[in-house]
Amino acid sequence: MDNDFEKMAKELKTFGPMMVQNPYCGIPTFFGLPFSENCEDLDIALVGVPFDLGVTNRSGARLGPREIRNQSRTVGAYNHHAKMTPCSSYRIADVGDVSFRTVYDLKEALEDIREFYRDLSSRGITPITAGGDHSITFPILQATARSEKAGLVHFDSHCDTAPPIHGSGLQHGSPIRNAVESGLVDPERTVQVGIRGSSEVLWRFSYESGMRVIHIEEFYELGWKNVVKEIRELMGDSPVYVSFDTDCLDPAFAPGTGTPVAGGMSTFEALQTLRGLSGLNVIGGDVVEVCPPYDPAGITALAGATVMFEILCLAAGSPALK
Amino acid sequence: MDNDFEKMAKELKTFGPMMVQNPYCGIPTFFGLPFSENCEDLDIALVGVPFDLGVTNRSGARLGPREIRNQSRTVGAYNHHAKMTPCSSYRIADVGDVSFRTVYDLKEALEDIREFYRDLSSRGITPITAGGDHSITFPILQATARSEKAGLVHFDSHCDTAPPIHGSGLQHGSPIRNAVESGLVDPERTVQVGIRGSSEVLWRFSYESGMRVIHIEEFYELGWKNVVKEIRELMGDSPVYVSFDTDCLDPAFAPGTGTPVAGGMSTFEALQTLRGLSGLNVIGGDVVEVCPPYDPAGITALAGATVMFEILCLAAGSPALK
Amino acid sequence: MDNDFEKMAKELKTFGPMMVQNPYCGIPTFFGLPFSENCEDLDIALVGVPFDLGVTNRSGARLGPREIRNQSRTVGAYNHHAKMTPCSSYRIADVGDVSFRTVYDLKEALEDIREFYRDLSSRGITPITAGGDHSITFPILQATARSEKAGLVHFDSHCDTAPPIHGSGLQHGSPIRNAVESGLVDPERTVQVGIRGSSEVLWRFSYESGMRVIHIEEFYELGWKNVVKEIRELMGDSPVYVSFDTDCLDPAFAPGTGTPVAGGMSTFEALQTLRGLSGLNVIGGDVVEVCPPYDPAGITALAGATVMFEILCLAAGSPALK
Amino acid sequence: MDNDFEKMAKELKTFGPMMVQNPYCGIPTFFGLPFSENCEDLDIALVGVPFDLGVTNRSGARLGPREIRNQSRTVGAYNHHAKMTPCSSYRIADVGDVSFRTVYDLKEALEDIREFYRDLSSRGITPITAGGDHSITFPILQATARSEKAGLVHFDSHCDTAPPIHGSGLQHGSPIRNAVESGLVDPERTVQVGIRGSSEVLWRFSYESGMRVIHIEEFYELGWKNVVKEIRELMGDSPVYVSFDTDCLDPAFAPGTGTPVAGGMSTFEALQTLRGLSGLNVIGGDVVEVCPPYDPAGITALAGATVMFEILCLAAGSPALK
Amino acid sequence: MDNDFEKMAKELKTFGPMMVQNPYCGIPTFFGLPFSENCEDLDIALVGVPFDLGVTNRSGARLGPREIRNQSRTVGAYNHHAKMTPCSSYRIADVGDVSFRTVYDLKEALEDIREFYRDLSSRGITPITAGGDHSITFPILQATARSEKAGLVHFDSHCDTAPPIHGSGLQHGSPIRNAVESGLVDPERTVQVGIRGSSEVLWRFSYESGMRVIHIEEFYELGWKNVVKEIRELMGDSPVYVSFDTDCLDPAFAPGTGTPVAGGMSTFEALQTLRGLSGLNVIGGDVVEVCPPYDPAGITALAGATVMFEILCLAAGSPALK
Amino acid sequence: MDNDFEKMAKELKTFGPMMVQNPYCGIPTFFGLPFSENCEDLDIALVGVPFDLGVTNRSGARLGPREIRNQSRTVGAYNHHAKMTPCSSYRIADVGDVSFRTVYDLKEALEDIREFYRDLSSRGITPITAGGDHSITFPILQATARSEKAGLVHFDSHCDTAPPIHGSGLQHGSPIRNAVESGLVDPERTVQVGIRGSSEVLWRFSYESGMRVIHIEEFYELGWKNVVKEIRELMGDSPVYVSFDTDCLDPAFAPGTGTPVAGGMSTFEALQTLRGLSGLNVIGGDVVEVCPPYDPAGITALAGATVMFEILCLAAGSPALK
Repeated sequence: MDNDFEKMAKELKTFGPMMVQNPYCGIPTFFGLPFSENCEDLDIALVGVPFDLGVTNRSGARLGPREIRNQSRTVGAYNHHAKMTPCSSYRIADVGDVSFRTVYDLKEALEDIREFYRDLSSRGITPITAGGDHSITFPILQATARSEKAGLVHFDSHCDTAPPIHGSGLQHGSPIRNAVESGLVDPERTVQVGIRGSSEVLWRFSYESGMRVIHIEEFYELGWKNVVKEIRELMGDSPVYVSFDTDCLDPAFAPGTGTPVAGGMSTFEALQTLRGLSGLNVIGGDVVEVCPPYDPAGITALAGATVMFEILCLAAGSPALK
Repeated sequence: MDNDFEKMAKELKTFGPMMVQNPYCGIPTFFGLPFSENCEDLDIALVGVPFDLGVTNRSGARLGPREIRNQSRTVGAYNHHAKMTPCSSYRIADVGDVSFRTVYDLKEALEDIREFYRDLSSRGITPITAGGDHSITFPILQATARSEKAGLVHFDSHCDTAPPIHGSGLQHGSPIRNAVESGLVDPERTVQVGIRGSSEVLWRFSYESGMRVIHIEEFYELGWKNVVKEIRELMGDSPVYVSFDTDCLDPAFAPGTGTPVAGGMSTFEALQTLRGLSGLNVIGGDVVEVCPPYDPAGITALAGATVMFEILCLAAGSPALK
Repeated sequence: MDNDFEKMAKELKTFGPMMVQNPYCGIPTFFGLPFSENCEDLDIALVGVPFDLGVTNRSGARLGPREIRNQSRTVGAYNHHAKMTPCSSYRIADVGDVSFRTVYDLKEALEDIREFYRDLSSRGITPITAGGDHSITFPILQATARSEKAGLVHFDSHCDTAPPIHGSGLQHGSPIRNAVESGLVDPERTVQVGIRGSSEVLWRFSYESGMRVIHIEEFYELGWKNVVKEIRELMGDSPVYVSFDTDCLDPAFAPGTGTPVAGGMSTFEALQTLRGLSGLNVIGGDVVEVCPPYDPAGITALAGATVMFEILCLAAGSPALK
Repeated sequence: MDNDFEKMAKELKTFGPMMVQNPYCGIPTFFGLPFSENCEDLDIALVGVPFDLGVTNRSGARLGPREIRNQSRTVGAYNHHAKMTPCSSYRIADVGDVSFRTVYDLKEALEDIREFYRDLSSRGITPITAGGDHSITFPILQATARSEKAGLVHFDSHCDTAPPIHGSGLQHGSPIRNAVESGLVDPERTVQVGIRGSSEVLWRFSYESGMRVIHIEEFYELGWKNVVKEIRELMGDSPVYVSFDTDCLDPAFAPGTGTPVAGGMSTFEALQTLRGLSGLNVIGGDVVEVCPPYDPAGITALAGATVMFEILCLAAGSPALK
Repeated sequence: MDNDFEKMAKELKTFGPMMVQNPYCGIPTFFGLPFSENCEDLDIALVGVPFDLGVTNRSGARLGPREIRNQSRTVGAYNHHAKMTPCSSYRIADVGDVSFRTVYDLKEALEDIREFYRDLSSRGITPITAGGDHSITFPILQATARSEKAGLVHFDSHCDTAPPIHGSGLQHGSPIRNAVESGLVDPERTVQVGIRGSSEVLWRFSYESGMRVIHIEEFYELGWKNVVKEIRELMGDSPVYVSFDTDCLDPAFAPGTGTPVAGGMSTFEALQTLRGLSGLNVIGGDVVEVCPPYDPAGITALAGATVMFEILCLAAGSPALK
Repeated sequence: MDNDFEKMAKELKTFGPMMVQNPYCGIPTFFGLPFSENCEDLDIALVGVPFDLGVTNRSGARLGPREIRNQSRTVGAYNHHAKMTPCSSYRIADVGDVSFRTVYDLKEALEDIREFYRDLSSRGITPITAGGDHSITFPILQATARSEKAGLVHFDSHCDTAPPIHGSGLQHGSPIRNAVESGLVDPERTVQVGIRGSSEVLWRFSYESGMRVIHIEEFYELGWKNVVKEIRELMGDSPVYVSFDTDCLDPAFAPGTGTPVAGGMSTFEALQTLRGLSGLNVIGGDVVEVCPPYDPAGITALAGATVMFEILCLAAGSPALK
């Protein structure tokens, strides 16, 4: 038998309410965890960023946090792969959503996000985020990346290293470039997984800066185990941020996203890749681009909540936290 | 000018957050009001009853409270018709959802509901409820009806006075009969508005017990103003409970309900009828049968939230509260 | 008390199963009535015509009969307005769908329909139909109209008296013209109710042949009671066919139709107009253009089933049947 | 007979293709009219503004022009009420969408819109617009309002005269205030029709500046004919702009909008009110806030296209054009 | 050539109607087979159980049988893998739905199901079931398991061996435990395939009783061929029941289910695993948890119908039938 | 670095507008390419065939071209696999939709299609088509196949080599048989990929005429690389037509199709197989059976647009074009 049920049962006792109440009941928080607006005494904060001003195509990701919360009620508390119940070992709470002074100017709004995370960072809290569009990753990294440059494990169908396009260098096609150019992320310890589509010309920066770009066809050629191996070698013991753009999944698995690209990976393959990263020095992570208006059965928000829980477990198992 | 803006502005200052944050942000509570699980020091409690065990047709109303909360974020705080900002005059909170020992036995589950409301009742709190299917109204009335029998203003396409059918006398087709037979509601001060469809044979009890049944064709023949007049005369100063089954609305206005019946009233007409009841001695009320799986654009939950706010304002304007 | 419950109860005893079984159970037939493929010993036959080859815009009405059957399970058996339980007074059955030799040639397919109804007609059975697009009304009339020309009560947003367009004179924009030109329908006893939209130029035939065209604005100007009065005067005691194109309803009430036109009547208004026709010499009727792929919550099929039941009751109350 | 078919037929000859091709065929333009990117030699330009940066609630109106074009293919060419075929009397074309330098800064984006319309204005072309959110009306008015202040007929559930909120004075809750404060619109010749909901406190400016605010309950109290009469008197012969926010309609008629408010008018009532304005000196108009992601059956875009055609006919019948 | 067309053609002659009528026509039965309410002279009965009282999360599976019937019309009659036309070799019919005395008490309702299947069992008919939620498998097994304990091939994302939770030991999380504890199923010949998610703590019974639990990651590690091999070895010649919970599939393949879990197998992989079981001594089977309200395009019901046909073919090819 | 960015950038300069305008803006053409109704001076024509008269099951594919155009705006211009920007090397345009004299007679309508393509063929233009149902492939081949019989790479779940069924030999189940019987396609150079389902008895012709039928289970057994190898060997240097029926994909990847069959391949696997065909002598191709009414999130149209772009690139890389 590969499960220690006594331990599980004991751990879950402190986490009991979730086992008693049906998942459609009550005010939805991430994974049914307590809501803590003041963020006091936390190890890990679960944050919503209801924001989609940065998109170049379909809007709607502003509703992502709400639907990820709803769907997350059947996800967690125990992680079968990591043999871990993060919520019984660490102080973890839903700290609500970033609030904005403005959502009508991309530059200013991203500053609001940055300030929210700087506050978490100053208290030593690891942030795990549900977006929102991918433009939010840049200000999160501004607040979260510490003295040492972060490595980046980046799941996506796009490299998001475009030069300024459509009138802005801050939209959701450029956050990774911005993070590198600002000295927050080490491009040589950046792996981009699941890349595909027709925008290759926009991503020259990925190649020139030395990122490891794993197109979807190479992902299948290597298999997720070898991808994991390569990522682990590249990341070593240094700090790592995990950014998961839902559109790395095939539209069958994630129809509810703003810029879907046909021909992606399955949710299972993405989860296994994530699980392979356990033990890395994860300092934060996000799930972005869940866009509920295009998700009629809620499966994208469910996949997003599941990925968010895996990233939460990576953070909880990270040496950074100990 | 018919609005006292200074007063509004002052009242809303205490209610400020809602005007600052966009409605898609934050953990959703009814009308963005504070969440208060312990129900302390309240005048009015907003309650969710995520329950649909009592339905005879399509299930799904268990998700009603969640979606009514979501849609309610653009509803309230000010009531233009009553010139009232209830939340600045009274202590009102979202007290969360009834929790159940079981949801697998209709009889026992209704007892759980009754106990929840008895607790509110013992503290003198007026309950306003978002269901859930209509079977919940009987246990709510068991807890809410006081020494004096309640009058009942009942919006519905069905009379809900059926004898036991489909194997139960507690399902959602019989709550009004149960309330009368239990001596909680005065049938001669009961008005049923919007009745239609093919189940007339089941509703003999309405006629025999002396209820005022206003079929939809009579509703249009009289006009809502005369319906209001008749209700007010019948209710007088005695205590009144308001039960609003969403299927009184035409399916165009409320597709998301379990047992829709074609040929109903518009949301505007229902709202005007409700508004006409201001000043009655309202001791509680509910909105039931919002069934989100059949509500692809959310308009039923929005109508439900709007009706719930009107009933909240009736309760806030009731002599019962003063 | 305006209901004779003893009589209802007695009548329903023979119709008992429907009151016992929940409406989502069992193989769906129209109103839960018996299925009778051989059509023996019937007074009225309920027929499905799963056909949409005749449309000029969106297809999908071929699925109309299936969804009308599904939704019809909560409709009937008692008609509160007519004080009638047609199924206990007459032999009425669901006789299934017209089967086609071909559905790839409009002309031949309409002949298949005609032959199906000729068989019913030869046995003296009154047909009530769920379509299908409106092109089916012409072959039904070919079989149903008897020695005397039929009057026609025609609910629609289009006059359907177009000359041949889009390459055919048999498509769903011309059935009424065809019926008149074939001598089946008396244009001077034809009333077209709910007309609107931009195709006026196609409907010259309506005016030139002497039909009474009631545009939607005139419908509201007169009120449904006066419309009923006018129809009754025009129809007298002569045979009448009732054809109800779902798009006479506003798209709010009937989104699931192939050629919706904004600005129509409500389901209630249509039902009241229909109910006003009781006692006319109705020899058959149809509900057409219910198009389920555009009906996400099923409200159009429900409206269609409700209208079909009213027409069934008109037929059951017709002197033609006695 | 009230239709001049010979005239219609003749006019439509020049407009023939639309009668030949089924509406689901071909590249969709507004009403199937020619596409003319260079805007040369036009009387009236039909413009799309695919933009929703200004919303305070749900985004998605950026897809409005595309779906209004799709649904418009069954709308027009003849207007039965005005006895008019505008496209055969005037040079009218779909001139495509406003293109943006940026969509990431509300202020700059609105300037792009203004410049686009200034170009049209400088050529004497009357613009009819499909939005987009309501923030676009301010820059359109900046370009369209001429020497004389414009009167404004404004259909909406919100007054849109809010002070700066949610961090901006340019978002979709304030365009009418901005237009008045900029001296473009005469508040004393501004009528706001269909107003309702809970935001009254934000609209003090409407009352203080002298606008005529017709709440939905007053709209029903007066009836649309009296509303028309009052508007006509107020507008006189002076220039008038017509702005139609889709959320003036009840969510049953227009579920696909960003900020729906329960209890609104029907599409028919809105259309009749619009039709009543024929002959006014209309210098432009818009339909805004059609939000396709919440419009599963397309009925909101259809209502929007129908309203757009009526406004087009108002412009075509305006003395301004002659 | 690997197909014996002469044989197929001959077999299908007796099964002709299905090849003639288009699949959207006629009253829907499972695979277009005859309807036989009295169950006389059958080898295999296809049963619907429209029931979802046992769910712990989203309801709606009560509509499963209806939609599986609808989608099944394009599935069957020939099985290319088994080279079998079961309906021409055996007497197989759709026997309709279980009817319930009550659906308001889980315990009593399950007794109704048990009695229905006891009747089938007493006539020696093999039942193949379309649910309904998974709680129905326990009463089916009570009626179907014979003198010898049954082996169980169980596809699911959950082990369904929970102790009493949410107030009941009969809800859909416990049927497999109940069957083992009642001595109906041999846990050591029970294989659970596709397991995943966060509820591991609830499934201790699976491990302690000796079941073979194949988590989804082991399923992919082994490959379906090895899974098949292992199952066949474990089952041997003894009787086997096959229970297929739709949520074993990834939500991409089966969005329409009550408790979806991200990261599952594809429909192809499930079908191949099922096909690998041909020749086992299959005594019955079910497909459960198809929940149409969350299945906007019908793909889950289609997958369910396809799985149901494979299980039907397993039963038809079972030595149990000969 | 495996991308020649200088070359890409230069090529895209001529194709600039698409990189500037957001994809939800403007009149939608295939891949944002120019619209050219007169087809002058083209190498490749992108054609829409809005037609679904040939279906045996659900209709709706007539809306395929419109939605493929909409979704295609995020697809192309660069092909990362072929290192190709076809639109900068060849004259390629969207030439609009086939227009029909009639859509009410399958035989005549197919003749209209044939004539449209004969015109293209006479000018030496390679046609790439977005359907429409699969019946259109026969008339396209009549116009496109030249002196030498074409080889055929056919992705589908059905062989489409049925004898006349449901009253016609031209419906969408028979085009491949028709093409072979008419001497247009060489059955011995025909590969059918992805075949599955229950209609094997209808496809005898495939086997008897010598086609290579690769059922889905063999596709997975071989792997796409070996399938590619086999196709390339069979095709050699002779002309090849590529016909892609969307239902070759699993319904998870392509819910929006008329006759879905569970258990198909993923979009990625289909794309890789297509990409493997580069360099073959491709003379034309089509994507058919995208059926938008069953595609609520648009993922099928997106997959269709992506496949269409791959086929376009095959044509652009074909020796036929040089």
